[in-house]
Amino acid sequence: MDIKTYLNEKRLAVEDAMASCMLPAQGPLVSHMEAMRYSLFAGGKRVRPILCLAAAEALGTDPVPLLPVACALECIHTYSLIHDDLPAMDDDDLRRGKPTNHMVFGEAGAILAGDGLLTFAFDLISDPSLSDFISDTARLRLVQVISRAAGPLGMVGGQALDVASEGQEVDFETLRTIHRCKTGALITAAVQAGAIIGGADDDHYASLTTYGEAIGLAFQIFDDLLNVEGTTEELGKAAGSDADREKATYPAFFGVQATREKAQEAVATAIAALAGFDHRAEPLRELARYIINRKR
Amino acid sequence: MDIKTYLNEKRLAVEDAMASCMLPAQGPLVSHMEAMRYSLFAGGKRVRPILCLAAAEALGTDPVPLLPVACALECIHTYSLIHDDLPAMDDDDLRRGKPTNHMVFGEAGAILAGDGLLTFAFDLISDPSLSDFISDTARLRLVQVISRAAGPLGMVGGQALDVASEGQEVDFETLRTIHRCKTGALITAAVQAGAIIGGADDDHYASLTTYGEAIGLAFQIFDDLLNVEGTTEELGKAAGSDADREKATYPAFFGVQATREKAQEAVATAIAALAGFDHRAEPLRELARYIINRKR
Repeated sequence: MDIKTYLNEKRLAVEDAMASCMLPAQGPLVSHMEAMRYSLFAGGKRVRPILCLAAAEALGTDPVPLLPVACALECIHTYSLIHDDLPAMDDDDLRRGKPTNHMVFGEAGAILAGDGLLTFAFDLISDPSLSDFISDTARLRLVQVISRAAGPLGMVGGQALDVASEGQEVDFETLRTIHRCKTGALITAAVQAGAIIGGADDDHYASLTTYGEAIGLAFQIFDDLLNVEGTTEELGKAAGSDADREKATYPAFFGVQATREKAQEAVATAIAALAGFDHRAEPLRELARYIINRKR
Repeated sequence: MDIKTYLNEKRLAVEDAMASCMLPAQGPLVSHMEAMRYSLFAGGKRVRPILCLAAAEALGTDPVPLLPVACALECIHTYSLIHDDLPAMDDDDLRRGKPTNHMVFGEAGAILAGDGLLTFAFDLISDPSLSDFISDTARLRLVQVISRAAGPLGMVGGQALDVASEGQEVDFETLRTIHRCKTGALITAAVQAGAIIGGADDDHYASLTTYGEAIGLAFQIFDDLLNVEGTTEELGKAAGSDADREKATYPAFFGVQATREKAQEAVATAIAALAGFDHRAEPLRELARYIINRKR
């Protein structure tokens, strides 16, 4: 299979679904809707929704009717980027080559756009229109898995620890916690969401969880590498910004070569976890390889 | 019945439940947990959780096993206060007589504490430990009602419109939209959540929705009045701050006397909506009266 074609097709399907289920920019709240849509439709690889779809497909389930769940994952990811970019956090002016949300809508507008996207994600998952395609029990479990992963013990907690650690001497254990929470948790939850949509049994759910954790780790390690090696043009954001802020990263601990090997090990772990799946898991396997071959 | 005793008892029950279900301040994410707990346990009337409990009781249901759902409402309310107080929004230094979250934990810490509380609310509602006491279908409906009310079409949207309207000429229709979304939506959802917990039929659900919308309106109108008439000491925040910021308020449109009458009308509407309920709705009726007799 050609992973680039697959990713492109899925990305377009996700973006079509986002256009259908996102609130239109009209009415008295038009400027708030515009602020949310600006970042949601500013490009992006749509990795989390695609992982969700690919995991459901690996179990032989057509995930198309559940695309709003995949969109919910992208809403949560986008909110986290908007808040991370704020002046009080990373203070970034550029994201994906475009001015960050607060540069366009102001700080208050950007904070609220993030809040709106996060809340809307749970609205999407719980929308009554999905009830023909998935049981209420499975959907409640989606809410649990995704809220746990995005919350204080997951993504938000990881970001808080990351912010608190800036300019501090950070041990490797703390770096691992930051990575696992800040990036790994939502990526794992995206795969788990696909497993729930696909009606995975306990064994398959556990295997997909291992896969998700491993690619979450690979993703973050490789992001650290890209930040060291990439150019600003390739990344769409300032290259070398982690080192400028003295952020703890894998390359800072292990050097570039050993970091690259660790990313490869994580990818191997991810692929090994899929041993019990047939050819329908091929996109997941290719996705794992793709993570450490991308340029941004 | 004595509403003050009732409110005090319920407030203590809610705060006990919050202490049980809130994440402990320990581990690597201790500072994030502390930031969330600081605002959650900084006092407050706990109006939304109490409304939820009282609505379930009006239907003859013991809501005690579902206290985490009531706590989730308070998490969402608290997050909204933390974000509203931020320098980029209302820039308030005091809340309930104590330094606001960002004065203690910094702006980044406060933004993330709010994000964490909002996300944790959905974790609480979907926690598997509640499954013995409420159906998955009812809980999914709780997620839908609460996320819709707190999201872009409700509380967040109302706050966005409020911020965008500051210093602008605002017509009455816009003021109503701000009130209905920013304050009314979550108060209504709190009552609806109690209705869902209580297994309300369609008629009772509709009546409780009308009740919720009416007290939501009364609450906001009376808040506007308090801001004009209260002292800083009584309010625990800066009095007269709305006028300082030229915010649109009911008294600015109608004057103090007519505003007071409108609040009383809304309370009468709320009580009339409970005509089909017996003595077990007495706390809801008293609560409606209490809203326009409080000092803060």
